[in-house]
Amino acid sequence: MKSNLSGAIDFDKAGGVVPVVTQDFTTGRLLMVAYMNREAFEETLATGRACYYSRSRRKLWRKGEESGNFQVVREVRLDCDADTVLLRVDQRGDGVACAEGYESCFFRVARDGCWEISDERKVDPSRYGPGYGHRKPSG
Amino acid sequence: MKSNLSGAIDFDKAGGVVPVVTQDFTTGRLLMVAYMNREAFEETLATGRACYYSRSRRKLWRKGEESGNFQVVREVRLDCDADTVLLRVDQRGDGVACAEGYESCFFRVARDGCWEISDERKVDPSRYGPGYGHRKPSG
Repeated sequence: MKSNLSGAIDFDKAGGVVPVVTQDFTTGRLLMVAYMNREAFEETLATGRACYYSRSRRKLWRKGEESGNFQVVREVRLDCDADTVLLRVDQRGDGVACAEGYESCFFRVARDGCWEISDERKVDPSRYGPGYGHRKPSG
Repeated sequence: MKSNLSGAIDFDKAGGVVPVVTQDFTTGRLLMVAYMNREAFEETLATGRACYYSRSRRKLWRKGEESGNFQVVREVRLDCDADTVLLRVDQRGDGVACAEGYESCFFRVARDGCWEISDERKVDPSRYGPGYGHRKPSG
């Protein structure tokens, strides 16, 4: 019998969740950092679409269920301490991972002592509905 | 007066630290995830070398101080929630970010229901001294 992937992950260290780093499979762009509990991890493996756990809402967060900006998982990696997961994904929908309408949540860069917005907003997130964007992307 | 970079970061959310994702500047390879408190962030900016905060040892962790595998910071980014930092670095020394001697801490990949080591170990970490490697890289 194959070993259990989720069984090897140290969910206890941070109270039932692990940080998950999500990277564009093709470009390597860092898209976002969120969290998964065991159930979210299992659902991600079963469906091939990224499912996180929202710590603030205390429930599964199926990425893209409102916006259509879902993520097709191409590769799943685990770090040496077994307490952080890396997803390499294809970002679908409008190609934006960030609830503020940017491709990446990391759209600000340190420059001359300030955080500067270096990216172009690709989408006005209000198009996804009136409640959208009030939910914080990192949960 | 310029805004304070560290002042914009939400260190309070996770008890004084934020997760830091570190990526190779040139290749985009995800190298490691660690943590910084405000002091580590300030030192990183001041020196241009990655300095983390070890949560287990409760002190600054100047990456590479034992092994020589330090990281030259090329770019610093902040996410939309201001609670996660991205470092894009040049990995120096032996070119390994992982204390187990791999380029990346994410040297295991999910394949056929198992975590498989997909990378080659570049260095035997015992060369860095007898105590090395007992210190967990993610702190």
